[in-house]
Amino acid sequence: MMISQLKGGITSPQGFKAAGVKAGIKKSGKYDIGLIYSTVKAGVAAVFTTNAFAAPPIQVSKSNVEHGSARAIIVNSGQANACTGRQGILDARTMVNLTAQLLGIDTNEVIVASTGVIGVTLPMDKVSEGIRKAVADLGEDTDETTAQAIMTTDTFPKSCAYEFAINGTTARIAGIAKGSGMIHPNMATMLAFITTDVNIDSAVLKQALSAAVNKSFNMITVDGDTSTNDCVAILANGLAGNSIIDSSNAPGYQEFYEALLKVCMYLAKMIVKDGEGATKFIEIEVRGAQTVHDAKSVAMAVAKSPLVKTAFFGEDPNWGRILCAAGYSGAHIDSNKVSLVIGGIQIVAAGKGIDYDEDNLKSIMAKNEIVVEIDLGVGTSQATVWTCDMSYEYVKINGEYRT
Amino acid sequence: MMISQLKGGITSPQGFKAAGVKAGIKKSGKYDIGLIYSTVKAGVAAVFTTNAFAAPPIQVSKSNVEHGSARAIIVNSGQANACTGRQGILDARTMVNLTAQLLGIDTNEVIVASTGVIGVTLPMDKVSEGIRKAVADLGEDTDETTAQAIMTTDTFPKSCAYEFAINGTTARIAGIAKGSGMIHPNMATMLAFITTDVNIDSAVLKQALSAAVNKSFNMITVDGDTSTNDCVAILANGLAGNSIIDSSNAPGYQEFYEALLKVCMYLAKMIVKDGEGATKFIEIEVRGAQTVHDAKSVAMAVAKSPLVKTAFFGEDPNWGRILCAAGYSGAHIDSNKVSLVIGGIQIVAAGKGIDYDEDNLKSIMAKNEIVVEIDLGVGTSQATVWTCDMSYEYVKINGEYRT
Repeated sequence: MMISQLKGGITSPQGFKAAGVKAGIKKSGKYDIGLIYSTVKAGVAAVFTTNAFAAPPIQVSKSNVEHGSARAIIVNSGQANACTGRQGILDARTMVNLTAQLLGIDTNEVIVASTGVIGVTLPMDKVSEGIRKAVADLGEDTDETTAQAIMTTDTFPKSCAYEFAINGTTARIAGIAKGSGMIHPNMATMLAFITTDVNIDSAVLKQALSAAVNKSFNMITVDGDTSTNDCVAILANGLAGNSIIDSSNAPGYQEFYEALLKVCMYLAKMIVKDGEGATKFIEIEVRGAQTVHDAKSVAMAVAKSPLVKTAFFGEDPNWGRILCAAGYSGAHIDSNKVSLVIGGIQIVAAGKGIDYDEDNLKSIMAKNEIVVEIDLGVGTSQATVWTCDMSYEYVKINGEYRT
Repeated sequence: MMISQLKGGITSPQGFKAAGVKAGIKKSGKYDIGLIYSTVKAGVAAVFTTNAFAAPPIQVSKSNVEHGSARAIIVNSGQANACTGRQGILDARTMVNLTAQLLGIDTNEVIVASTGVIGVTLPMDKVSEGIRKAVADLGEDTDETTAQAIMTTDTFPKSCAYEFAINGTTARIAGIAKGSGMIHPNMATMLAFITTDVNIDSAVLKQALSAAVNKSFNMITVDGDTSTNDCVAILANGLAGNSIIDSSNAPGYQEFYEALLKVCMYLAKMIVKDGEGATKFIEIEVRGAQTVHDAKSVAMAVAKSPLVKTAFFGEDPNWGRILCAAGYSGAHIDSNKVSLVIGGIQIVAAGKGIDYDEDNLKSIMAKNEIVVEIDLGVGTSQATVWTCDMSYEYVKINGEYRT
């Protein structure tokens, strides 16, 4: 199947407009309110953080997503509206209500998200003024500023758009994301918003989104912390005109799923590449596990280990740390059957270190992108996880004084 | 009950001798073979790493501990004898056999442990020569060198000894430990060896050790990595002359357990204080949880979070990161009931940030030891975990090139 990348961004699918404005929530004066709008009714699906301290905007959006259709996503950066109690809920509702009123749509057709400083109530005068400005600025030449408006300390905006065919009909899908950036001070937050003009039932859309997120955003880790504000949402407005995809067996589902997965994978990998202080992008492929759960457990244990991550930063092929992390992952392992390959060079066979070309491996470790392959040798399941190294810069970014 | 600390170390209990020698396994030329010996038969109990890549010495010691009595612990530092396959097993057995032969005891009366570089087979000529030297050097003025012989990159030896009364009989207990030190290159390993002259049944000894380890060594974390070589072992030779403690209800059990816990807590805290690159010692107390498991999950999630650890390094009272880690711990949490106190200053009440004296908190964060109290407000269970901050030095130590 052909899926071709487009130059545009979040407004590439038909019938979508967007805006990114400067509302003064960020002290830096950068873009801090983003709005995505479908000119027609759109199906909606979303996945949210499982953190027990889910922020007020998450709580409000959850109930609106259950409605099944939506037309707008309003998001602010700079302050996370998390741990803000009852006032936080009121403020999230105000963002939704004002957006709905200005756009002339129902209040349950608006998804709201926030990212930034925790524990501080939103400056609602600035937020409201920003929403008014965003509605006024809605357009189709605003992809770049919309992507910027959801950034915190991301070093670059993350955006992509693709065109593909569904049963001969041309359709488009696009997305923007922000990664584990820190704001001064804050926790990591992952946000991603996806638009498509595909005609698809909301329940099927939800199923496709969950599957794609599990293979992409749920397979990346920067520092293992799951934030209070994580959210991935998609709007599908049907303007492509394909006959409706009403089940996962329907014609076109597979084409749509593959395009959606492509967007999710692209954005997820960009988030890792822009991980705090990251100097290397590392792919951990685990094969030969008894179950997919085991494969993911091993890959995640390796990807999250500070000892492994600092070793990669130091370009030290310290394979003992990789096996060690696999060993405590909880997965079923036969220590005599494990093999390990780094950058195509086999390091461990049958659980034991073997001779390898040190100079060759050294040059592999010096690269910006490194693939680690672990074969557990006890089954046929596999999983792949993406992560980055841990550098001085990570400690610096996260250890800075708030004042 | 009076438990008084003694100046001595591992040979303080009656009937124990020890030695620490330089066998040339460490390139630095420092002490690298340690031997602990009971002049009479002693009960033994031990807990071992749960890592699937448990090193050969762990495998050999496990089977010897099942025997129920032991008289010697032979340990080398510098090389971990891990991921060394069949040769590793043979080498661990050779260490046991040679030690038994030279001491004139049974081979199943020897516990063996290794810590250091992974994936390299031991230089058995040096190891054997070192064992001979250690047996020849056995004495009671060797506490310091024995404690040094198990160190890797620990910056100070960890040792303690206590005297206490069991039903009017004076008894002693002592211990040495090494922490999450790195050797060039290696993974963290935690080793602790304890001696006592208390007269106690081996099964009861095992029960007491497991309970004490769960409250001490299992409650500390430096970077969350569980090594392939972790081991805590205790020898109890009965020379104190108390009537045997043959159950956990027997007179004297409680006195013994409290002294044992004191040794374990002392050594565990020393390991955290000597954590790689650590500048601060942090106690995380969780109360009001529905279960002890929940309380420990929350405390561990907070203690292991790189975002929390780097914030403490930066002396940044970034409480959002603490709640966030609690939120993804998996414990039952009602986000409206959580309170947080740092260094005695309340920061969060009913899940929401409250006003506090910033200058006061700043001076708390500048201290070397900080207590974090989290009350979940949904139950009566509690757990305490000890950890350290994460500094540039941590990244430096663990990111260094092997070459």
